[in-house]
Amino acid sequence: MVEAGDARSVTAALIVIGDEVLSGRTKDKNIGHVAERLTDVGIDLREVRVVADVEEDIVAAVNALRARFDYVFTTGGIGPTHDDITADAIAKAFGVSIDVDPRARAMLLEYIAEKDLNEARLRMARIPAGASLVVNEVSKAPGFRIGNVIVMAGVPRIMQSMLEAVLPELRKGRPMLSRTILAEAKEGDIAAPLRKIAETYPNAIIGSYPFRDEVDGRYKTNLVVRAREPETLAAAGDAVARMVEDNAGG
Amino acid sequence: MVEAGDARSVTAALIVIGDEVLSGRTKDKNIGHVAERLTDVGIDLREVRVVADVEEDIVAAVNALRARFDYVFTTGGIGPTHDDITADAIAKAFGVSIDVDPRARAMLLEYIAEKDLNEARLRMARIPAGASLVVNEVSKAPGFRIGNVIVMAGVPRIMQSMLEAVLPELRKGRPMLSRTILAEAKEGDIAAPLRKIAETYPNAIIGSYPFRDEVDGRYKTNLVVRAREPETLAAAGDAVARMVEDNAGG
Repeated sequence: MVEAGDARSVTAALIVIGDEVLSGRTKDKNIGHVAERLTDVGIDLREVRVVADVEEDIVAAVNALRARFDYVFTTGGIGPTHDDITADAIAKAFGVSIDVDPRARAMLLEYIAEKDLNEARLRMARIPAGASLVVNEVSKAPGFRIGNVIVMAGVPRIMQSMLEAVLPELRKGRPMLSRTILAEAKEGDIAAPLRKIAETYPNAIIGSYPFRDEVDGRYKTNLVVRAREPETLAAAGDAVARMVEDNAGG
Repeated sequence: MVEAGDARSVTAALIVIGDEVLSGRTKDKNIGHVAERLTDVGIDLREVRVVADVEEDIVAAVNALRARFDYVFTTGGIGPTHDDITADAIAKAFGVSIDVDPRARAMLLEYIAEKDLNEARLRMARIPAGASLVVNEVSKAPGFRIGNVIVMAGVPRIMQSMLEAVLPELRKGRPMLSRTILAEAKEGDIAAPLRKIAETYPNAIIGSYPFRDEVDGRYKTNLVVRAREPETLAAAGDAVARMVEDNAGG
C-alpha cells in the first residue's frame, strides 16, 4: 500500500463499459477527461480497456486490473435498463451479494417521486454488499466504491460529477510535471539528439509528437518532457529547448 | 478459422499505444474511427486497450489479445524517435528478429531524399521478420501485418490510410445492421417493456442511451436495435417502435 505523501507513484486503470463505444456509434469522451484529471491530482493512469456489455468480459477486466493497480475506475452500465449490468458484474467479480441499498434508494427519492420509482429505476439502487456510495450531483442515482474499484456512470456530465466526488478520498502520488517545447522541425531531423537527452535524463519521460501545422502547412513536432521532480523537469526541459534552438540555427 | 461468407462473426481488438493518451495530453481519435469502420465492413470490435510506451505492457497486451480474437490492430509508436518502440515490442511478442526491411526502406525513399534518410528515419523501416507491409499513402513509412496483428501509425490521417489499405485483405462476417428509435421518454419509464422486447428477441442486441435534449431541455432516450439478420432487425425494431408509440400515447 502507498501512503499519502509517499514518493512512490499511485496507479490506476479505467474500464469503459459499453457496446456503443465498440460499435463506433458513441464516441467516448470519458477516457480523455479521466486521464487529464488523474494526471492533475497525481494518480498515474496506466491502462484503459473498453469492453462490451457482457458480464464475463466485465468480470475478467475488473479482476485482472484491480490486482495490478491501486485503483480501477469504471464508466457506464449503471442505468435502469436491461443492458445496464455493471453493478451485478462487479458484485460477481468480488464474490459478494447485491441488492437494493436503502441509502441509494433514499438518494433516488431526492430526484424521483415515489410514484415514479418503478422496478426499473430501483435497479439503480442495487449496490454490491460492502460498497460505499459515490454521490451524483446531477441526477442523484449514485455510483459506488468497493475495495479499490470505483464505479461511475457513462454519461459524461454525471461521470465527471462522480469523479470529483470521489477524488478527495483517494491516495495520490506526486503529480507528474510536464513542459512542452515546440520544434519547428520534422521529428526525424531531431530524433538523434533527442534520444541522447532521453538517455542522459532517465528520470524524465520525453515524448515526441509530430503534426502538420495547418497555418503554414509545415511538419513540426511537439516535444513533451515529463518528470516528478522539478529539478529533473528543468534540466531535461532546458536540454531539449537548447537542442531545438541549435537545430533551428544550424 | 472463419472463411469469407461464413455466418460466424469475425472479431477484433484494438491496442492504442501511447503515454500521451494516458496522460490526457492527446485526446484519442482512433478508437471511434476504427470502431466505426470495422462495424461497417462486418468485423466486430470486442475490446480496446490503451497501454503506455512500455515494452512489456505492449507485449502482454498483444499476446493476450491475438490469442482471443481473429484480428488485433495497434495504433501508435512506429515513428523515428526513441519513444517509438511498437515494432520491437511486436517482434518480441512473436519471438522473431527485427531489422531494416529493404521493401520498407524503398518506400521511405519515395518520400525522403537519400541524404535525409538518417539512422532515426531508418528506424521506420525496421520490420519484424515474416511481416507483410501495409502501405501508407500519406507519408510512405509503412505499417505492417504479422500473423493476425496489424500495426498502424498513431497520427489519425495516416492510421486511416493504413486501415483502408489493409481492410480488403481481411476476412469479414455479416455486418451488424442497426436501427435507432428515438423515445421522447426517460429511460426509466420504458425500461420494463424494453426488457420484455429484449427477452423476446435474443438474437437482437438492444441498447438504451439516455440524453438531455439541448433544445427543449427534456430527457430522452435513443434506443438502438442491432442484429445480423434483416428479419430480426425488422421484427425487434418494429416492436421497439410500437412500444415507444404506445408509451407516448399512454
